[in-house]
Amino acid sequence: MKEKKFEWRTAISKVEPNKIIIRGYLLDEIIGKKSFGEVVYLLWKGDFPTKEEGKMMNALLVSGCDHSLAAPSADATRFVASSGVPLQASVASGILALGKYHGGSIEGCARIIQEGVNESKKQNITLTQIAEEIVKRHHQQKKRILGYGHPYHKSDPRTIKLLKLAKDLKIYGKHCELAIEIEKAFKNMLNKKIILNVDGAIASIMSDMGFPYKYGKGFYIVARAAGLVAHSIEQQEREKPFKAVPLDQIIYDGPSEKNL
Amino acid sequence: MKEKKFEWRTAISKVEPNKIIIRGYLLDEIIGKKSFGEVVYLLWKGDFPTKEEGKMMNALLVSGCDHSLAAPSADATRFVASSGVPLQASVASGILALGKYHGGSIEGCARIIQEGVNESKKQNITLTQIAEEIVKRHHQQKKRILGYGHPYHKSDPRTIKLLKLAKDLKIYGKHCELAIEIEKAFKNMLNKKIILNVDGAIASIMSDMGFPYKYGKGFYIVARAAGLVAHSIEQQEREKPFKAVPLDQIIYDGPSEKNL
Amino acid sequence: MKEKKFEWRTAISKVEPNKIIIRGYLLDEIIGKKSFGEVVYLLWKGDFPTKEEGKMMNALLVSGCDHSLAAPSADATRFVASSGVPLQASVASGILALGKYHGGSIEGCARIIQEGVNESKKQNITLTQIAEEIVKRHHQQKKRILGYGHPYHKSDPRTIKLLKLAKDLKIYGKHCELAIEIEKAFKNMLNKKIILNVDGAIASIMSDMGFPYKYGKGFYIVARAAGLVAHSIEQQEREKPFKAVPLDQIIYDGPSEKNL
Amino acid sequence: MKEKKFEWRTAISKVEPNKIIIRGYLLDEIIGKKSFGEVVYLLWKGDFPTKEEGKMMNALLVSGCDHSLAAPSADATRFVASSGVPLQASVASGILALGKYHGGSIEGCARIIQEGVNESKKQNITLTQIAEEIVKRHHQQKKRILGYGHPYHKSDPRTIKLLKLAKDLKIYGKHCELAIEIEKAFKNMLNKKIILNVDGAIASIMSDMGFPYKYGKGFYIVARAAGLVAHSIEQQEREKPFKAVPLDQIIYDGPSEKNL
Repeated sequence: MKEKKFEWRTAISKVEPNKIIIRGYLLDEIIGKKSFGEVVYLLWKGDFPTKEEGKMMNALLVSGCDHSLAAPSADATRFVASSGVPLQASVASGILALGKYHGGSIEGCARIIQEGVNESKKQNITLTQIAEEIVKRHHQQKKRILGYGHPYHKSDPRTIKLLKLAKDLKIYGKHCELAIEIEKAFKNMLNKKIILNVDGAIASIMSDMGFPYKYGKGFYIVARAAGLVAHSIEQQEREKPFKAVPLDQIIYDGPSEKNL
Repeated sequence: MKEKKFEWRTAISKVEPNKIIIRGYLLDEIIGKKSFGEVVYLLWKGDFPTKEEGKMMNALLVSGCDHSLAAPSADATRFVASSGVPLQASVASGILALGKYHGGSIEGCARIIQEGVNESKKQNITLTQIAEEIVKRHHQQKKRILGYGHPYHKSDPRTIKLLKLAKDLKIYGKHCELAIEIEKAFKNMLNKKIILNVDGAIASIMSDMGFPYKYGKGFYIVARAAGLVAHSIEQQEREKPFKAVPLDQIIYDGPSEKNL
Repeated sequence: MKEKKFEWRTAISKVEPNKIIIRGYLLDEIIGKKSFGEVVYLLWKGDFPTKEEGKMMNALLVSGCDHSLAAPSADATRFVASSGVPLQASVASGILALGKYHGGSIEGCARIIQEGVNESKKQNITLTQIAEEIVKRHHQQKKRILGYGHPYHKSDPRTIKLLKLAKDLKIYGKHCELAIEIEKAFKNMLNKKIILNVDGAIASIMSDMGFPYKYGKGFYIVARAAGLVAHSIEQQEREKPFKAVPLDQIIYDGPSEKNL
Repeated sequence: MKEKKFEWRTAISKVEPNKIIIRGYLLDEIIGKKSFGEVVYLLWKGDFPTKEEGKMMNALLVSGCDHSLAAPSADATRFVASSGVPLQASVASGILALGKYHGGSIEGCARIIQEGVNESKKQNITLTQIAEEIVKRHHQQKKRILGYGHPYHKSDPRTIKLLKLAKDLKIYGKHCELAIEIEKAFKNMLNKKIILNVDGAIASIMSDMGFPYKYGKGFYIVARAAGLVAHSIEQQEREKPFKAVPLDQIIYDGPSEKNL
């Protein structure tokens, strides 16, 4: 059997002795000139954003930076931190929690919205019609539309602010419009107030910035990493080791005691 | 046995219906006004940085954002991504690699430097003397000083730029000075050119910004998360699934074949 | 907003002071009487296996215990181990690689086979017909059937042995039969020799033992954990820290150097 | 700069087309002949155990298989599972929790005991004297001896059974003896009943079986992986998505609300 040589291609960055290039730019020239949010954009999209997009990028990351212990990611990080592990291990544990039901809606919602805007162009129909079709389809299939609704926030303060900012920065486009049309369709068709949550807002805005939907979770991964670092260190500094659910809050409902 | 109630304290953030507070500030007021780097500082230090510190914070994060496949973290992320997993799982795998020998030097170096500056004050001796004592001690114990030397970069372009920026922003203080005194002591005492690498530069500057050393790895965790997202998505888009070391590059040197 | 009390139900096990119960049995009575394979069966299926099933369970775990560095999981574990992390962190990194393309076929193949056997009963048609229908459907959709084919092994020695053992132990049933009928259908319909690989063999046998398909990856997670522990310790004992792809094997094909 | 070829050595296993060798043995010959516990021993120690050691190996793995939700590992796994991730990601999250304070005592205790037995030989003093020296040293330094004491079990049923089995199987040797001498020294010197817990029992027995202490966590990693698979699947089958600490059980004690 002929083996391929072990090589690896990348278009992201290049390392040479005394030289690091990110998407064509010298890293040491970037340092001090660009904010971290702008460099995240560079890494993911291949070139630097405009000043407005750079500001929006920072805002998107800021919006996902922490949600206290009211999130499975922070809870996992703190349990693992309590077990006596290095910082990166407890943070990785929390990042693993950014699954389908926790941050994953960004990707899912961005996909729905990006496909919706494409359909609208291809079929030459209005975003209102697309929105109604999306709500109808999900309602018939008894599926939630990702990026809508929130267990705690009936009006998500992050959404309101992000959308306003996107308008001020002239980034608000067809994807944000469709996202809001879906909110309206919930009201008009089902008589329900189901809000665009922060995941949905990030999804709409990143779509208007031209990010493919598969980058969706990336925003939360980077942003929440910062919060999880804080939670891990606080846990180890202020709490006792070995945090676990107390015995009297565990309800055993398995088979009763029996002989081998 | 009396069980404690399952409660959890935190001073990081507070979530109420329609309201999220980070270290006392309303998250929706922060969005759009502060860069992500400034919010990382807020999360970790408890209040916002000055404008100069905020700029430095962004620069520190930018400097660690990626190092191509020449880093175990990116390699781990790409192997795991090739196995067909969601984004957060491959990124978490790379973050796990930010151990003692990869990013971990920030914490280790910051600790040496923070203890050194403290000793200098307590014993009223110069940083040059402290630096010589540190080099001597490590030399006698045949231990590397964390944050010095680099396999590829004989002159680390990131270090040079970060230290210059720290001076321009008036952040450069006793910790950076001590870090440079150690470089000089290598030269004077051992006649060796051993450079302060990017980990050491981040360590010195974060120390002058007042971060306890245990936050050291945090800078890499957040920064590199951005690069790892790019590597994971590039791997899944451009390469075939199931990347593994080819058979003819694995050298088996265990026991030869034998019967059970 | 009324919050639910923080309680958690489980039917797996119960901990009381000086007493641990697994699925109804006292753990200290199990220790020494049952093999680990039998206890894995207990944990997942809710009661102990017959002696034959217990033997099969051990064999299934043994078959997945290691595959040298020719697997993304071992590679990820070794890169992460080289970075200087505790054992559990490097092993967790490898376990993360047990995704869709690496071990994930057990679940995928078990699902196809379990649904096939159900269809066969419901529609009262032969397994041969079901097999042909499955091959035809995947061929038309240009999809691989999970659990078939292998990059290195044209005849997988683990498959042959596991199926023989399943026959000897009277565990071989309709699911194994269907798996073999699919192999035959490849030959008859497409004139291709596409073998049932070890993932497919585990999938078929676990199905005949009554495990729902979602336990599929579990066999690899437990089994490979043992191999990954060995790889992690060997890496740290025999190799230098900070393993990374060498610079001259990284092919950069991104934008050429440009000014900011 | 001359780069080394990218090769990797291993003495664990060898993969050739149609052939897999583990520590010199053909994997397909092992399948069905050896229990999983015996193969774990093979992977870690390099050759097969005696029949008695194989039985002990299985017992050690069985003893660590699960501890309900009263363990940070299971809790982390369940939070992460609730977020909608594949099985390996939630299990990896739990494995990450096997740190210094959760399973890590096996390694720590084995180290103390292995060093103690070595000292006893070198200095030709009794294990009782060594035990007293260990208790005295830890008491003076105000440090716990790893492997002793348990939050729930004043008499750990797993310890009692494992030590009895080690005696029956003629594996009980100087390391187990020293472990018990330490229990006695607590009583005699400090008048405290501090029991050898299950971590300490595994540590003592694996030491008498000749395992270096760094394999200590490996026993828990493999064993608990089985329990964590059960917890992850149960969580996703029986509970709602997005488990998080309820808002009213999070006590915020950070700065009160203030303006930006």
